Amino acid sequence: MEYNKWVANLEVGDEIEGFYILKTAQIKTSNSGKPFLAGVAADRSGAVDVKCWDYAGPLGAQDEGTVIKLRGSVTEYRGALQVILSRLRLAQADDQYNLGELVPVAPMDVDAGWRELLDMVDGLGDGDYRAVCRKVLERYGERFRSIPGGKSMHHSFVSGLLMHTLYMARIAEQLAGVYPEVVDRDLLVAGTILHDVAKCDEFVISPLGLVTEYSTKGQLLGHLVMGAQAVAEAAKELGIPEEKSILLQHMLLSHHGEPEFGAAVRPMCAEAELLSMIDLIDSRMEIYKETMEETEVGTFSKRVFALDKKIYRHK
Amino acid sequence: MEYNKWVANLEVGDEIEGFYILKTAQIKTSNSGKPFLAGVAADRSGAVDVKCWDYAGPLGAQDEGTVIKLRGSVTEYRGALQVILSRLRLAQADDQYNLGELVPVAPMDVDAGWRELLDMVDGLGDGDYRAVCRKVLERYGERFRSIPGGKSMHHSFVSGLLMHTLYMARIAEQLAGVYPEVVDRDLLVAGTILHDVAKCDEFVISPLGLVTEYSTKGQLLGHLVMGAQAVAEAAKELGIPEEKSILLQHMLLSHHGEPEFGAAVRPMCAEAELLSMIDLIDSRMEIYKETMEETEVGTFSKRVFALDKKIYRHK
Amino acid sequence: MEYNKWVANLEVGDEIEGFYILKTAQIKTSNSGKPFLAGVAADRSGAVDVKCWDYAGPLGAQDEGTVIKLRGSVTEYRGALQVILSRLRLAQADDQYNLGELVPVAPMDVDAGWRELLDMVDGLGDGDYRAVCRKVLERYGERFRSIPGGKSMHHSFVSGLLMHTLYMARIAEQLAGVYPEVVDRDLLVAGTILHDVAKCDEFVISPLGLVTEYSTKGQLLGHLVMGAQAVAEAAKELGIPEEKSILLQHMLLSHHGEPEFGAAVRPMCAEAELLSMIDLIDSRMEIYKETMEETEVGTFSKRVFALDKKIYRHK
Amino acid sequence: MEYNKWVANLEVGDEIEGFYILKTAQIKTSNSGKPFLAGVAADRSGAVDVKCWDYAGPLGAQDEGTVIKLRGSVTEYRGALQVILSRLRLAQADDQYNLGELVPVAPMDVDAGWRELLDMVDGLGDGDYRAVCRKVLERYGERFRSIPGGKSMHHSFVSGLLMHTLYMARIAEQLAGVYPEVVDRDLLVAGTILHDVAKCDEFVISPLGLVTEYSTKGQLLGHLVMGAQAVAEAAKELGIPEEKSILLQHMLLSHHGEPEFGAAVRPMCAEAELLSMIDLIDSRMEIYKETMEETEVGTFSKRVFALDKKIYRHK
Amino acid sequence: MEYNKWVANLEVGDEIEGFYILKTAQIKTSNSGKPFLAGVAADRSGAVDVKCWDYAGPLGAQDEGTVIKLRGSVTEYRGALQVILSRLRLAQADDQYNLGELVPVAPMDVDAGWRELLDMVDGLGDGDYRAVCRKVLERYGERFRSIPGGKSMHHSFVSGLLMHTLYMARIAEQLAGVYPEVVDRDLLVAGTILHDVAKCDEFVISPLGLVTEYSTKGQLLGHLVMGAQAVAEAAKELGIPEEKSILLQHMLLSHHGEPEFGAAVRPMCAEAELLSMIDLIDSRMEIYKETMEETEVGTFSKRVFALDKKIYRHK
Amino acid sequence: MEYNKWVANLEVGDEIEGFYILKTAQIKTSNSGKPFLAGVAADRSGAVDVKCWDYAGPLGAQDEGTVIKLRGSVTEYRGALQVILSRLRLAQADDQYNLGELVPVAPMDVDAGWRELLDMVDGLGDGDYRAVCRKVLERYGERFRSIPGGKSMHHSFVSGLLMHTLYMARIAEQLAGVYPEVVDRDLLVAGTILHDVAKCDEFVISPLGLVTEYSTKGQLLGHLVMGAQAVAEAAKELGIPEEKSILLQHMLLSHHGEPEFGAAVRPMCAEAELLSMIDLIDSRMEIYKETMEETEVGTFSKRVFALDKKIYRHK
Repeated sequence: MEYNKWVANLEVGDEIEGFYILKTAQIKTSNSGKPFLAGVAADRSGAVDVKCWDYAGPLGAQDEGTVIKLRGSVTEYRGALQVILSRLRLAQADDQYNLGELVPVAPMDVDAGWRELLDMVDGLGDGDYRAVCRKVLERYGERFRSIPGGKSMHHSFVSGLLMHTLYMARIAEQLAGVYPEVVDRDLLVAGTILHDVAKCDEFVISPLGLVTEYSTKGQLLGHLVMGAQAVAEAAKELGIPEEKSILLQHMLLSHHGEPEFGAAVRPMCAEAELLSMIDLIDSRMEIYKETMEETEVGTFSKRVFALDKKIYRHK
Repeated sequence: MEYNKWVANLEVGDEIEGFYILKTAQIKTSNSGKPFLAGVAADRSGAVDVKCWDYAGPLGAQDEGTVIKLRGSVTEYRGALQVILSRLRLAQADDQYNLGELVPVAPMDVDAGWRELLDMVDGLGDGDYRAVCRKVLERYGERFRSIPGGKSMHHSFVSGLLMHTLYMARIAEQLAGVYPEVVDRDLLVAGTILHDVAKCDEFVISPLGLVTEYSTKGQLLGHLVMGAQAVAEAAKELGIPEEKSILLQHMLLSHHGEPEFGAAVRPMCAEAELLSMIDLIDSRMEIYKETMEETEVGTFSKRVFALDKKIYRHK
Repeated sequence: MEYNKWVANLEVGDEIEGFYILKTAQIKTSNSGKPFLAGVAADRSGAVDVKCWDYAGPLGAQDEGTVIKLRGSVTEYRGALQVILSRLRLAQADDQYNLGELVPVAPMDVDAGWRELLDMVDGLGDGDYRAVCRKVLERYGERFRSIPGGKSMHHSFVSGLLMHTLYMARIAEQLAGVYPEVVDRDLLVAGTILHDVAKCDEFVISPLGLVTEYSTKGQLLGHLVMGAQAVAEAAKELGIPEEKSILLQHMLLSHHGEPEFGAAVRPMCAEAELLSMIDLIDSRMEIYKETMEETEVGTFSKRVFALDKKIYRHK
Repeated sequence: MEYNKWVANLEVGDEIEGFYILKTAQIKTSNSGKPFLAGVAADRSGAVDVKCWDYAGPLGAQDEGTVIKLRGSVTEYRGALQVILSRLRLAQADDQYNLGELVPVAPMDVDAGWRELLDMVDGLGDGDYRAVCRKVLERYGERFRSIPGGKSMHHSFVSGLLMHTLYMARIAEQLAGVYPEVVDRDLLVAGTILHDVAKCDEFVISPLGLVTEYSTKGQLLGHLVMGAQAVAEAAKELGIPEEKSILLQHMLLSHHGEPEFGAAVRPMCAEAELLSMIDLIDSRMEIYKETMEETEVGTFSKRVFALDKKIYRHK
Repeated sequence: MEYNKWVANLEVGDEIEGFYILKTAQIKTSNSGKPFLAGVAADRSGAVDVKCWDYAGPLGAQDEGTVIKLRGSVTEYRGALQVILSRLRLAQADDQYNLGELVPVAPMDVDAGWRELLDMVDGLGDGDYRAVCRKVLERYGERFRSIPGGKSMHHSFVSGLLMHTLYMARIAEQLAGVYPEVVDRDLLVAGTILHDVAKCDEFVISPLGLVTEYSTKGQLLGHLVMGAQAVAEAAKELGIPEEKSILLQHMLLSHHGEPEFGAAVRPMCAEAELLSMIDLIDSRMEIYKETMEETEVGTFSKRVFALDKKIYRHK
Repeated sequence: MEYNKWVANLEVGDEIEGFYILKTAQIKTSNSGKPFLAGVAADRSGAVDVKCWDYAGPLGAQDEGTVIKLRGSVTEYRGALQVILSRLRLAQADDQYNLGELVPVAPMDVDAGWRELLDMVDGLGDGDYRAVCRKVLERYGERFRSIPGGKSMHHSFVSGLLMHTLYMARIAEQLAGVYPEVVDRDLLVAGTILHDVAKCDEFVISPLGLVTEYSTKGQLLGHLVMGAQAVAEAAKELGIPEEKSILLQHMLLSHHGEPEFGAAVRPMCAEAELLSMIDLIDSRMEIYKETMEETEVGTFSKRVFALDKKIYRHK
């Protein structure tokens, strides 16, 4: 019997026991008329199908997204692993388990990252952009620090949005140094820090901190437009010059680069153009990283949906 | 000598005198070293090249967009008409001319149209949508009533935006009657009335009331996003339910139908879908009308840029 | 035991008996070597999987598309309902069941709709267009009145083509009123009434009145070209002026709007342009309606294949 | 003084006299108020600008497309040759000139080509396809033999359609030999011979035999649909089996390959697929040939509009 | 009991025994905890699922792609045939079976085809192109003669590349005869013979001679670029004129026609243009042939992935 | 009289004398029959039309691209400046002028930039990549250091390729630091340094050092493929491991990102993906820079061809 074995390490024949997240659960009836539970269990390393024969409850669909304790044997069904459960129950108040091992979290020091980002805001030479950044971050603060960067494509772990934003802001500072005559460093860094901030309103976040779906508002308006509204409001309250407010809004509205990728308008100043390319760089590098982790050196990955191609891992 | 002859009726050999708009003007130097004025004069029926030999001023580029009095002979140059001017001067305070004959205006009773639109607002059953419409129209009122619908594609005449909006609102009411189970009539009509309202901020309007270019704000944010912000603000001040505010904003943000045509988001409710199609219908019908006026019955037009094709006039 | 319970209302645990359409049926062999029947049963409210264990006939694939009587228990299998049959037989001459409850039919008064359409034809002021409409409708009459508008996308119920055509003709009359200088009302209404008439030859209709597939001719020529040929023939026999015949043919040939949506030529007159947009409006509104019926208020639908997006139901 | 010098051979300084086609002509007024004629003269080798100073007629726009006699000096203006005329008049009944040297004609023995094509029809093993070909060719015969293949892209010379069709039919016979199990040789050859036959109705042909524009019918229906109607009528009169009529119509309707290139339906049988590719081959090879004639060996051509690229001539 | 029955002819109820290729094999565990083998067996006529209950080895995944002897009963599972095996073992040295009946091979006389291709090389009038062809064929010879033309789309059988190349070379010779002024016959034929030669390095070939996947080099460089490098090297060693080397390389680099279909550059000479169209013709005709073999006369095929449409078989 | 006045500073009325590049020149005949020279003169600040009346030589088209001495008066013609020349002659051996003021040169210290790039090569930790870089740079050295980066889009000045490559290499080093787990720094930097090296063979360079056109080889093969061949050859001679050679070649072949932008293959490893994005960043930032120099603060530029949009200059 192995305890809290990582899902990523399970093998046929393992006997396991421990705490996992119940991602989905359904009570069904077999052809022979008996009830059983079919679902998916997960920890931060991955997810696996589970079945519990002759089981009619009490656990079921109403418990999706919570932590359970289970015991079972690992088998294979249709080419995928499947854990046949002999026991399962909800985690209880006095259970000893580590939530951090169940929910995937950004692979970085989140506190340090958050401070680095705030320092970047403090370091903005332009007082107007600095004030807008502070006001908008105040409004979203805690959520901005903790929500994932997306649902499944990339950065879909706790504090993923912070990590994505931080990496992009670092690159923004580097590139502003390469093109000083072309780029207003403060506008570029401020736009980068705020570009995805309205994802806080676009996502629906589960109790465990992950994105389960998009909010109605998020789908009908989009985080680009919502972010621009947040900037417009902050700028109005602070009374900063209209051109700066418009430029910052423009950066948020155009950061997907082209209309077919979701941009409300195309980038029309150097900082907006750069922002859209920095966003592309960090998204793609994270996708490469996550894909390479699942690919052996010297081989090609499966087709990566978000890139519409296979990639090659050589190191 | 003919007075105030319509530009559309000029023919080689005409001797003319009268008031016209000086659309463009430049003082140049001929190969023989003498100064001359080259420009374009226009009335509401059309525009024509003008030249004044041996002329060094005082009129010039600084007078573009104003009314002048001119005298000249109509000739032809490189296949186009050209008026060789013998006299020209600025119109003066006591000159007798009809501005309405110089500036193209919507072919409708503007007052009646404006009242019809306000009546439609009053007729909205939903008090929230009615209140938002009133508040936004109050903010833009005079401008909304008088500005053109665009720079050159269609409805590019005084009160063109009103005419475009009114025709669309009539169709919106008709279609709401055809699909009562699918469509919320009040949302559809309210969204239609407000869909282009932010063109008031997107266009730069000349003293004569026409669109000369787009504002900086208009180009960096676009009238879809600016319109949605106006709705959001009005709704917030009025305290109407958030879902209604979001739905109205969604209609404005999506009314270009597809991202490649400028939509910030794709239409996701029936009213937004209809609005984008009604917009297409009224734009295209006006383009057909304007093109047919320049095409003989039984023939094809020249290629219409906005449609990317020729059209056939059969009636 | 419930009798003729609507498929849409079935729940796990129901014991049912009644008449349904056998949409598909196959005799298979289980791993244990025993024969069983697997298939799908349906009424006008929906469809459900059925299985009959230890069953080797006489019913099978040869009975697809006919009415059967069945008895069984509703269970769930892989997340979908499944009726385990204990009895099944073909419906017999003296059985009492209501065919109208099995086959989906247009939600309208078909007789009244048909008369309204014929009245529209009678109301055409242009005798030539009126005569062509009458002649073509005579040729297709009964079929035109009863066939569905399509196989599965929208209007895929009995008399769906009539309903689609009627709604479009109503809108055509409304829009002709909005744009009297641009549009020849008679041409627009005549073209609208005839635009899909050749679907009668394009579809293969099952005994129960639904579209099962496309005819060879339909696939190799398409209903646009076949419809234009029908108009050309009728016009030739009636001796109407060639231009009118060409214009009507042009409307049918171009009514899909753009080549990539199946138009044989692009619309080149105002009536053809409008027809293609009216077709889009009615197709989309019906898709919204059918999708909204399956979506709860305040939520988004599943991705709608024909629209390539999810839609939001707010009322 | 050189007589009837080829336009393609003109050089600055030449003094010329002879017969040419007056392609365009306009009487204009110079800045000094004097009338002059500006136009274009051509023979089968090319076209050149002409000007006649102090000329008010009698020749003018009404004489475009006719043969004139001219005398003049070759100069250069804005980088292009221009003939300054000292004399010009219409060609008269007793003038001695060779029309064949003025109008471009297919570089082949037209009579022999026409016989070869008729022999191919006679050689069709399938009596039905043979009969349809004969009937349709009878209907269009003389025109089919003499009209150009297009207005300007390729084969835009007298008998260009015959040449294009003949070359394609030769390739069709070759390929039918390569793929005997896949291709019905008679269907392929018949479809190839008839594929463009309705260009006879699509083009407006000038007195000199060239395409000046497209007919109303041609633009509203297109030669694909008109050709299919001609086949349908012929097949009906001859009473041949419906499937053969449909297949032949399908070949004509689909011969542009893809909807965006004008196909009414996509090719769905091997013969239609081949036909569309043979059409592409012969069009492109003729474009290469015509372009190579204007390009020096070892250099690249100008951008070829129809290919959207430059080509390299190496032999 | 039937021996070595063709997979294409299997029916439910058959008892079979014989030699087949084990295409895939996995040892799994059933819900009841017992091991079983699930896999696919094939001969040159097709492939079928197999299962062996209560089987833990010795055969398994490590034996994929080898020949086995099996015995079993044909049943149906989820609408597809499935052979329940009672016995299976690896083929042994002294077993009597015909490998030619297991592996699909080009339907042609491979020796004769190979000689025909070599004769074409010998027949090239241009000594430089002839020498390059010989040198490159020498390098790839045996592999070029035997590998398939692809993995699954078309020509995916032993010697498929040879068959594809040979058919294309025949067409190249025909077309060179139709366009002698435009086309350099030797360049066209040489380019055709070499166009796919680097597929020898792009594919990974299994012991049985089929393509199982693409090589790392093949995916990172592609057979167009690798083929051009092979030509460049051969040309350099032979010292032929640079222009000829560049033209031949250009033909290989551009033979996919357009960048979106994989061309490294677009075709810019007549021979390259023709080569890309000949490639299209032979690929499509082979797809039609393979699809027609699985389609009944008078019916439409299933959607063909490589053509993105259904096709009609009429003969 | 002003000497060597910058073309960018010319104004109507200036009398000038000095040395300029004769970019184009043609001897033409005026309507009055007299010869004149029409052409374009330029220095590193810009270009201007020139005319010399009553001039028949000796200078003419054969002197394009050389330095001349001229004297003339600046006038305006059709809205553009034009210098009417009173004198012109070729520059002579003993003339005193600064070639650097005539030919546009990269705005950087070229020697320092070159050393920086060589230092980056020396700093490559991987000996194989370092050796290949050295060998390829040796082969192209002088040309690589001096040729422009393109013909007109961006970096079209002397040493433009070096500047473009150097900026990109700096960014490559920065990004390698941000993504150490994903990116092989040496591969990324080596690929960046070599990515455009074959432009040395793709461009035809004029005596003054600018790109006048593309070489035949350059157009038929492209600098991506030629660069990969150079790498392949160098790697072969040096005997480095095949995988490294393939990866480097892959980076060059894919650096345009997508086939429609000219990539021979799509990027399939993280370094290739990054390289294509860094290339985009540096090209776009240079276009922004060059466009901003011609645009006033607070206004929009004209439409930038390479970006297909206008840009806004706010600083």
